[in-house]
Amino acid sequence: MRFCRYQLADGSTGLGAAFEDGIVSLSALDPSLVDNMEALMGDQVGLSALWQQAQQTPRLEGSPRFLAPILKPEKVICVGLNYRDHAIETNSPIPSEPVIFNKFPSTLIGPEDTIVLPPESERVDYEAELVVVIGKTCHRVSTDNALDYVFGYSCGHDVSARDWQKGKPGGQWLLGKTFDTFAPLGPFVAHKSSIADPGKLSIQFRLNGETLQDSNTEQLIFSIPEVISYLSQVVTLKPGDLIYTGTPSGVGDARTPPRYLNDGDVCEVEIEGLGVLSNPCKRE
Amino acid sequence: MRFCRYQLADGSTGLGAAFEDGIVSLSALDPSLVDNMEALMGDQVGLSALWQQAQQTPRLEGSPRFLAPILKPEKVICVGLNYRDHAIETNSPIPSEPVIFNKFPSTLIGPEDTIVLPPESERVDYEAELVVVIGKTCHRVSTDNALDYVFGYSCGHDVSARDWQKGKPGGQWLLGKTFDTFAPLGPFVAHKSSIADPGKLSIQFRLNGETLQDSNTEQLIFSIPEVISYLSQVVTLKPGDLIYTGTPSGVGDARTPPRYLNDGDVCEVEIEGLGVLSNPCKRE
Repeated sequence: MRFCRYQLADGSTGLGAAFEDGIVSLSALDPSLVDNMEALMGDQVGLSALWQQAQQTPRLEGSPRFLAPILKPEKVICVGLNYRDHAIETNSPIPSEPVIFNKFPSTLIGPEDTIVLPPESERVDYEAELVVVIGKTCHRVSTDNALDYVFGYSCGHDVSARDWQKGKPGGQWLLGKTFDTFAPLGPFVAHKSSIADPGKLSIQFRLNGETLQDSNTEQLIFSIPEVISYLSQVVTLKPGDLIYTGTPSGVGDARTPPRYLNDGDVCEVEIEGLGVLSNPCKRE
Repeated sequence: MRFCRYQLADGSTGLGAAFEDGIVSLSALDPSLVDNMEALMGDQVGLSALWQQAQQTPRLEGSPRFLAPILKPEKVICVGLNYRDHAIETNSPIPSEPVIFNKFPSTLIGPEDTIVLPPESERVDYEAELVVVIGKTCHRVSTDNALDYVFGYSCGHDVSARDWQKGKPGGQWLLGKTFDTFAPLGPFVAHKSSIADPGKLSIQFRLNGETLQDSNTEQLIFSIPEVISYLSQVVTLKPGDLIYTGTPSGVGDARTPPRYLNDGDVCEVEIEGLGVLSNPCKRE
């Protein structure tokens, strides 16, 4: 089951079921559903029945395009240095606990939306990431139960201005990670029932078609249940909250010579079972 | 002009004008106003006229109590090490640019709400802070124009779990600052027209009546216009966004011996013209 938000050529938006051959409007099948993925997260929603009904429904016409599947989450939480191969390439020790930072929800953009390269940074870098979408409120959950609180998974891109992330007093990463447009997400959210093991998914980043990151979520230092359990000690996680789970090796800043995003570049994040998240870059 | 959100004994809530002798319901004066301070921030709202009308209106009965004046801001941004006296006491260099981190909006609580001391931390500390409430969307504003985008000011308390802020891999402050209940705010927002100079306000923190911080916003390293202008280079600030502008000297962690918050403690932040923000502490 793959759920999305879409926009038609006439500007109207809706909640959709994303099939290989097109999108079905869930709002048309159930007018009580608002254009908000959190509407699908309640225990009372018969997701499987809705999905089956959608399978037999004509696909949308009107040139639908994917929007960011989650609109205004309360939190966009990120894990740093969470792939063994990436910790090694950045000469960072393997962390003993997850390294947690965040982006403001205002950074979220959808597939094909433009990543704006701001004049304030000369070192904007890419990071392909598996994103966890929380489906139920949780606080202090154990690793054994953590996946019960997941709604699904999506492709994410943790765009990072390295000069701001690493070069500012206080050493805080927030600003370098949270320029407007720095959190592409999508194209859809795969319900957790569709992903046999989120800890065994191939993940790639391509820049203008060239593969620059090529790894597998098996390389995660802290597994998804461990990350959720850890975070839930501190904050109450809510439906729609997003967790960008970290990036594998191959980032531009760790290359010799370094490679940064430039005007006209096209970024693609591809994760097994989660489609391709593609975004052009534009220098402002 | 002082605006607030309130709750009556029957559980109903509303937007209010806060006078020395009580609260007037603005929702009753203008039923189009929803219970959300952002409703007062549009250019078309005749704030002065509404305030004058409120002055002549009977105060609310029904034991109104103050709620957090801002409910769900998109961003709660914080400035670290922004008082000269505090940078010195923590042996930190005077930063050359503002040190920026944040709290999740879910941490916000109102006056008299309980600060929960979580079992996961043994070093929960206090920080009295002047909070700026953004009133208009802005991006890349100059220091000269920055105050045009401010709605008003409030008392804030940047509760901080020092063991999490300072003792975790990666050096990121977010988790130590963002335990649930770690951002008291209120009791009201003073409109900027009521505050002659936000850079000349006395600010105190009292623990169980004992004054532990006693300074003035004259000690700010980066002024409020400078902080707004700096932040607006990176993110688009929106109505309702909050900026906790930093804390003066006297925090518990820098004392010999250190002092941390304990079960039963009562915290008070008092800022000239902005009232007193009082919160009890409870060990969970």
